[in-house]
Amino acid sequence: MRIVLDAMGSDACPEPEIHAAMEAARLFTDEIILVGPQKQLETILKGIEAPSPNIRLVDAADVITMEDKGLKLALKAKRQNAQNTMAVGIDLVKNGEADAFVTAGNTGGALATAYYRLGVISGVERPGLTGLFPVKEGYCVVLDIGANPDCKPEHLVHFGIMGAVYAEKILGKNEPRVGLLSNGEEAGKGNQLVQDTYPLLEASGLNFIGNVEGKELFQGRADVVITDGFTGNILLKSTEAVAKLITDLLRQELLSSTRTKLGALLAKPAFESIKKLIDPAEVGAAPLLGIDGLVFIGHGRSDQRALVNAIRVTRQAINSNLLNALQTAIKERIASLSAQVKP
Amino acid sequence: MRIVLDAMGSDACPEPEIHAAMEAARLFTDEIILVGPQKQLETILKGIEAPSPNIRLVDAADVITMEDKGLKLALKAKRQNAQNTMAVGIDLVKNGEADAFVTAGNTGGALATAYYRLGVISGVERPGLTGLFPVKEGYCVVLDIGANPDCKPEHLVHFGIMGAVYAEKILGKNEPRVGLLSNGEEAGKGNQLVQDTYPLLEASGLNFIGNVEGKELFQGRADVVITDGFTGNILLKSTEAVAKLITDLLRQELLSSTRTKLGALLAKPAFESIKKLIDPAEVGAAPLLGIDGLVFIGHGRSDQRALVNAIRVTRQAINSNLLNALQTAIKERIASLSAQVKP
Repeated sequence: MRIVLDAMGSDACPEPEIHAAMEAARLFTDEIILVGPQKQLETILKGIEAPSPNIRLVDAADVITMEDKGLKLALKAKRQNAQNTMAVGIDLVKNGEADAFVTAGNTGGALATAYYRLGVISGVERPGLTGLFPVKEGYCVVLDIGANPDCKPEHLVHFGIMGAVYAEKILGKNEPRVGLLSNGEEAGKGNQLVQDTYPLLEASGLNFIGNVEGKELFQGRADVVITDGFTGNILLKSTEAVAKLITDLLRQELLSSTRTKLGALLAKPAFESIKKLIDPAEVGAAPLLGIDGLVFIGHGRSDQRALVNAIRVTRQAINSNLLNALQTAIKERIASLSAQVKP
Repeated sequence: MRIVLDAMGSDACPEPEIHAAMEAARLFTDEIILVGPQKQLETILKGIEAPSPNIRLVDAADVITMEDKGLKLALKAKRQNAQNTMAVGIDLVKNGEADAFVTAGNTGGALATAYYRLGVISGVERPGLTGLFPVKEGYCVVLDIGANPDCKPEHLVHFGIMGAVYAEKILGKNEPRVGLLSNGEEAGKGNQLVQDTYPLLEASGLNFIGNVEGKELFQGRADVVITDGFTGNILLKSTEAVAKLITDLLRQELLSSTRTKLGALLAKPAFESIKKLIDPAEVGAAPLLGIDGLVFIGHGRSDQRALVNAIRVTRQAINSNLLNALQTAIKERIASLSAQVKP
């Protein structure tokens, strides 16, 4: 197994990436291909005792930064001879020199680079950005969390098909329950997009459980929740923000007196489980579903542990032949849907 | 001041309503008009020592329940001779016999009843359901949180105008900062609706601070955040659900061992502040902005304290002449906007 890790992705790059590559190469004995400015990476690696023989460096002088956007970003993503880590890394996947690409860098950059260089799975129009949301028990696959602010019903159906494959292959869910995010449970609730998508999902052959509200999502009623990229992004960022608001306030209040400090010390095990619940490092990374290749994106704040977990989930995707399963599911379900919807 | 309280609104009605009416009548010496099945209310009131002379009962035999929806709900809301508590109570406002109506009942029912019986403020097409979100410091006015799943740009502009008046009159904000909920801060980010609304808000004369993400909302970057009712409803329900998930998990973990139980006991003051942050009773109720009359809606789980707080905020609205300010702001800003946008 050969996994490309963008050495210049995370906010604190490239140290977390180098150490994560070392750890992953040791743990999994896979080849980890670090893509980045070779000399800089070599200097750091030289300072490390006994670097793993399973690490290979591939030079990429340029970087897509968090500030890159619009035309500049599109050009960096698209240009044939682009020398940024994402373009170089994704080309390794394209050329069959690696099985998957992992980055904790600019999400829009990874999306654009993957889209231009790998294209989409046949039958898919729009790739969806996937998130794993911690829920009451386990995780819920949510997409799209930001790639497509405006979606058509068929895009949402494709997200449902792909999300179900992901939940099955990676989370081990049998007949994953697919829900449509809405402002009310009953069929007929929702905005126009939701109302137009509902009958298509009913006819899709997926285990469609109908509309789900935000409340039910976090209660774990569905394994996969699908939505447009605008709503999904607001869902992601606002719930992250509320979790942070509560934990920040709690921390502040707990440190406000000797009594509460002592209480916090005693109650520490309880806080650890909260921390685990809302820590993006637990999940590691989530895929761009619909891209014709395996591309996983982690949080910008990823540390070594998060990046090792990102590589871990990417390995699972390779091992379970996720890409092939996605291609097959899209082909079969779309054919069956067309047969039903346009008789 | 004469405030109508729907005696049959909250999940535990009518006891919390009766006791809240008693407390409010004593605290504020206003007339509180309890609308509900008169005999039932009288029986309960008789069991109470020294009921306040400021409480008046108005008979309404029927109720809009949480199960009412669709055509049935529309008929209950609209019929001239409807005898449900919302129709009877709102008619008191319409006929000038009361200054405002407060309910903790079916939100859709209150919206429909208010819409049919009071109509909308001249210039407003769609009333918006308003929420007060607890943020880092204080509250943020968010609308629409569910009345209109599909909105046009002008609806969002009206929400902005009305939300700003509310933030000024009720939260005491000077030149309230109005933000547009989006999946990215930069102008040009967002779905089509957001992109079309942005220039109108720029030309509105409001203190428009541009797009805000979910993160910034909870950091308190804006006093007013506007969005369509689909997104707003998902924002509301998912953030409530995350807060509940975290606090439930924390409670469960804290009770899991003697050590953590002791810690929880010592840390209790810290938990109280979290509870206060996420307790809807703190806010009491929020208005239907755009309805041509004062209608406030509280949470179905409202208890006596929540209902007294609901009456408190309704009093503020009456005292500050909120309705008049809304009418004036809509008229002036729309005139100024039309002059600019269609020259």
